[in-house]
Amino acid sequence: MTQTDMRRLRGVLSPVVTPFREDYAPDARRFVRHCKWLLAHGCSGLAVFGTNSEANSLSADERMTLLEQLVEGGVPAATLMPGTGCSALTDSVRLTAHAVKLGCAGALMLPPFYYKGVPDEGLFRNFSEVIQRVGDDRLQVYLYHIPPVSQVPITLGLIERLLKAYPKATAGVKDSSGDWNNTKAMIDAFGKQGFDVFAGSEVFLLRTMRAGGVGCITAGANVNPHGIDKVYRAWQSAEAETLQATADKVRGILQAQVSMIPALKATIAHYADDADWLTVRPPLVELTLEQRAKLVSELAAAGFDMPGIKS
Amino acid sequence: MTQTDMRRLRGVLSPVVTPFREDYAPDARRFVRHCKWLLAHGCSGLAVFGTNSEANSLSADERMTLLEQLVEGGVPAATLMPGTGCSALTDSVRLTAHAVKLGCAGALMLPPFYYKGVPDEGLFRNFSEVIQRVGDDRLQVYLYHIPPVSQVPITLGLIERLLKAYPKATAGVKDSSGDWNNTKAMIDAFGKQGFDVFAGSEVFLLRTMRAGGVGCITAGANVNPHGIDKVYRAWQSAEAETLQATADKVRGILQAQVSMIPALKATIAHYADDADWLTVRPPLVELTLEQRAKLVSELAAAGFDMPGIKS
Repeated sequence: MTQTDMRRLRGVLSPVVTPFREDYAPDARRFVRHCKWLLAHGCSGLAVFGTNSEANSLSADERMTLLEQLVEGGVPAATLMPGTGCSALTDSVRLTAHAVKLGCAGALMLPPFYYKGVPDEGLFRNFSEVIQRVGDDRLQVYLYHIPPVSQVPITLGLIERLLKAYPKATAGVKDSSGDWNNTKAMIDAFGKQGFDVFAGSEVFLLRTMRAGGVGCITAGANVNPHGIDKVYRAWQSAEAETLQATADKVRGILQAQVSMIPALKATIAHYADDADWLTVRPPLVELTLEQRAKLVSELAAAGFDMPGIKS
Repeated sequence: MTQTDMRRLRGVLSPVVTPFREDYAPDARRFVRHCKWLLAHGCSGLAVFGTNSEANSLSADERMTLLEQLVEGGVPAATLMPGTGCSALTDSVRLTAHAVKLGCAGALMLPPFYYKGVPDEGLFRNFSEVIQRVGDDRLQVYLYHIPPVSQVPITLGLIERLLKAYPKATAGVKDSSGDWNNTKAMIDAFGKQGFDVFAGSEVFLLRTMRAGGVGCITAGANVNPHGIDKVYRAWQSAEAETLQATADKVRGILQAQVSMIPALKATIAHYADDADWLTVRPPLVELTLEQRAKLVSELAAAGFDMPGIKS
């Protein structure tokens, strides 16, 4: 295992939801506090500025400021895997260089997502330019495959080209396709080369670990890091299936709500007794009072809790 | 007709392709020159930073700098309708305020396009926040409906709400759905309230004018502004159908190529005898030599030319 490998994140990562004030300005104080709670309750890393972080509703400057505030606020950079893949190449380069300079463990990179139907050659050039322009040996790129949202996929062929051209920088992938066969194909093809495959949802965690993956980066870890971490820690034990089923139950409730991100925020708002957490930035819309009541009663019925979340 | 209406753009607008240098940096000199050629050859306005401008491959700062360079370079702000709608609310506000301050005729606004399946309420809040935060009576918002790319639509219901809440700022729409029934429905529903409907392709120009629309904002106007402007000027004449068929022929050739934006740039590169025009930013890829030869021979066979484009 090389030095680089030693520093690699594994286990349960949360794409941390971003708290906003009433005027939609990011709320750094609540953000730092939530990140610390996550690290204390089962997350081994924080994939801040992911899809569930409403990162694409934030400007590049807002993201960089928040990242600096996290580190200044005492969140170790070695736990951070910020999202840095933007629609514009120049933004991706800027955010990625900034993350590396701060000492972040990795950068989770969406492909440029505005133009659809682009060739793999164009996507290769995008990542290639980022890696070359950042020009830092510490850079660990995690590719972010989330076709239901980005509509632009990360194919096996693209991963192969990147691994060949940049074996040190091409660190892994988050597969949020929701298609287990695809996750398995990624692990089978590249897992043995030190390419780290994270499932994009906790429901695939046990299967991912058994197949040779390294963990999951999942929305559900915003509220249930402890439950998901239990699956990760015990994946080789006899209890693994039971723990997975328990985690799945919480995920199922969250996913059945009208909209995932507002549901995560409503869950935190409820258990932290802090209504300020409800705010989402347009184009998202917060849950209604009725939708929140339904969510909370379903979580309570499942015996769910967020220990220590109240300040 | 109010003073605001007097300043409204009508006719043929080009979503101007953005020239890049070999290192993918925007090339302001070529950009200014092409904009002036377009205004001298049939365009009444310039929808810079549209989809075909690779605008979503540019950072907010790059767009603002280029816009300033255009105005400083002698392109009248009154002809400009820059794209200012971004995925992040804060970027949209910043770009829109900047465009208004420079005296641009309007702002062409994509809905926030990363999150899919968002409710109209969230999109309404997005545009509402932009209009209120810009807080300038001169702001003329043109909504940009391009579901094949953005995947997030501008519905009739959303237009109705915006017109009701912001009758002065809600100026019109560019409909790039490719669905004539939708364009017609927009004109029928709102055209008489002073809401200006532009077709998103020249192939709908004659139908748009006959139905009560005001023109088109179209990729094809980057290379064929003269041919399209003829349709616009003569739409009530006996020749209208013939002129439309001639414009359609050029459009058909461009659209049949592997990829529209590289094809537009290859066309300019050929007629301007300036290979620097070929460069596209990742994730796009330029046409191959073979693809360019095919394109050029098809255009020549159709008797196409770009008079005065050679410097």
